Amino acid sequence: MKKISILGSTGSIGTQTLDVVAMHPEQFTVDGLAAGSNTDLLLEQVRRFNPRRVSVSTKQHADQLRSSLPSGVELYYGNEGLVEIAAGGDAQTVVTALVGSIGLESTLAAIEAGRHIGLANKETLVTAGHLVTELAGRKGVKLLPVDSEHSAIFQCLNGENRADVASITVTASGGSFRDYTRDQLVNVTVEDALRHPNWTMGAKITIDSATMVNKGLEVIEAHWLFNLPYEKINVLLHPESIIHSYVEFCDSSIIAQLGSPDMRVPIQYALTYPDRWPSPAARLSLAETGRLTFRDMDFVRYPLLKLAIECGKAGGTASTAYNAANEVAVARFLNREISFLHIEEIVDRVLQQHQNVNSPDLQQIKHCDTVTREIAAKL
Amino acid sequence: MKKISILGSTGSIGTQTLDVVAMHPEQFTVDGLAAGSNTDLLLEQVRRFNPRRVSVSTKQHADQLRSSLPSGVELYYGNEGLVEIAAGGDAQTVVTALVGSIGLESTLAAIEAGRHIGLANKETLVTAGHLVTELAGRKGVKLLPVDSEHSAIFQCLNGENRADVASITVTASGGSFRDYTRDQLVNVTVEDALRHPNWTMGAKITIDSATMVNKGLEVIEAHWLFNLPYEKINVLLHPESIIHSYVEFCDSSIIAQLGSPDMRVPIQYALTYPDRWPSPAARLSLAETGRLTFRDMDFVRYPLLKLAIECGKAGGTASTAYNAANEVAVARFLNREISFLHIEEIVDRVLQQHQNVNSPDLQQIKHCDTVTREIAAKL
Repeated sequence: MKKISILGSTGSIGTQTLDVVAMHPEQFTVDGLAAGSNTDLLLEQVRRFNPRRVSVSTKQHADQLRSSLPSGVELYYGNEGLVEIAAGGDAQTVVTALVGSIGLESTLAAIEAGRHIGLANKETLVTAGHLVTELAGRKGVKLLPVDSEHSAIFQCLNGENRADVASITVTASGGSFRDYTRDQLVNVTVEDALRHPNWTMGAKITIDSATMVNKGLEVIEAHWLFNLPYEKINVLLHPESIIHSYVEFCDSSIIAQLGSPDMRVPIQYALTYPDRWPSPAARLSLAETGRLTFRDMDFVRYPLLKLAIECGKAGGTASTAYNAANEVAVARFLNREISFLHIEEIVDRVLQQHQNVNSPDLQQIKHCDTVTREIAAKL
Repeated sequence: MKKISILGSTGSIGTQTLDVVAMHPEQFTVDGLAAGSNTDLLLEQVRRFNPRRVSVSTKQHADQLRSSLPSGVELYYGNEGLVEIAAGGDAQTVVTALVGSIGLESTLAAIEAGRHIGLANKETLVTAGHLVTELAGRKGVKLLPVDSEHSAIFQCLNGENRADVASITVTASGGSFRDYTRDQLVNVTVEDALRHPNWTMGAKITIDSATMVNKGLEVIEAHWLFNLPYEKINVLLHPESIIHSYVEFCDSSIIAQLGSPDMRVPIQYALTYPDRWPSPAARLSLAETGRLTFRDMDFVRYPLLKLAIECGKAGGTASTAYNAANEVAVARFLNREISFLHIEEIVDRVLQQHQNVNSPDLQQIKHCDTVTREIAAKL
């Protein structure tokens, strides 16, 4: 029996993680679930998976939930609640499926408590990759990637010497607007942006795919997860999202991971690694797919990808600021306050005035995050 | 320093193996070289790589070579010579790059002597897979695949549990006549058949690619190398030969090996496994390639592939007879005695009259091989 907890259980990755748990009832139990404001769904999950501990975002939501909870279930809220689900209890693996740098403290708490991390919350690595990976190394904690691209690379590295890696290539579908020129992006709506061609995902990541910020965050995530310089991390446009990513070795041999776009496969692998268990994900038939296509990434078409890599290379708080600015800008776009292209403008302007702090500690990172959000909210 | 010997040093795989050796002069030495009749090239190889022992196919060729050989190089010939290069000396790895079941005895001798095998001579596994794999298991000898497809699968299995394999898929370019209907095959010439679209290979394997016999031999080879039932071995048409083959696991995840079509990569991997060394093979750019295409294998278009798998499933001497009949038929086609489609007819008729012997020993296999060749020569 593997005991797991999920931070962000009512989101896209959280619900799919529970799908995986439900498929293997003999192998998994759920220790804790942390959600935001979707108390109805959380209550459903509590009834189905019997966690011992749950948390919601605010005291108000906790009060709302309290009377309906089965007896014996401990209830928490706020950031302290998140940390309690992450580090309290006795889960072996914590799936960090929160969206945004809000997951940083609870992720660090889970690592500090010696829990392995099923890492879907890429913003934590973008915001504070050096702190997260250093602590994980010190605590002997595995950071098991849940992102399909990073899971792919992780799988391709199985049984290989890390020193033999020549480069890794993260594939990108191109997002909702891959066939639009930049001129056509001027008037796109929230609804247009939320229509991803291949994957069904949460709102923030779908917008991040359209701006290619998501790929930028993934490059930074890959840098930290696989301890590779940015020069060895490539991005390739692959509209069909069938080759999820690949590794090239020094002998020119490429090992790639392929599959239908179904997040339950990488989620499950993070939970079962190094084993593989049967999955209900559709088997991929390449004969049916017929063709796979590829083209060079266009860094002019997607300036925020270029900027993300520059921030990653700069180190310090640059990627913290990049991420915070983007989170605010995307929230404002989803809230219909700003246009799609204004997201780029905000992130770009924030970075232009950013004063980089080298080797920041947690306080400095939090400060950068807070200050950047204030600036980005007004641009 | 790794000491290697090569059976079939003047053929396509043999010369490319020596290319690999030449790229890493600090890491490899050559102990023995066995060739057929190309004494000029063998002499050149002797001068360049300084083996201690060489062999040629006949006494006549040996006599021709003797006076030119540097002093101290031992000279052998015939089947005994092959066995001497395979099992004498002190090579750690023997690359079996002979074409045809003629390589069987020397391969068994090399295994008996505890040499690891860089296996390019697929006909030995087709002819006597149960004997070769049983002996290798007993002697603790590694059978390291050199065929690009089997090397791909071998690489995809790195670090994985064999029990998690759902299936493997061997890709096929379709060979020289992949765009021909069966009607158009009636009058094709030897020259037409030798024009392989992707790979530069020896004559026999190029014809085997055009008839899809090569893929049939590879399926049988895969059955023995990876200890998988035929139901778990698929064949997929992939004209670009970029995905060399792949493995599907029980969780629906596919791991594939890709690269430019350059045999030096799998040859080198067989020699350096589990390490990878730098290779001069061209780096693959999927953006430059642009697209990869796939379609279901057509077993009606390629009846000899279907027959190979049936022979594999039947076991016993069926695949021995299949291979021997094909070797004779291909030689007759290359000798312009018969038409291209007559190859199929010969193999098919041989198998129709074949009396299968279960669990044959080496004598029974040799007998089947000899008798089949006599029949096939007259059909």
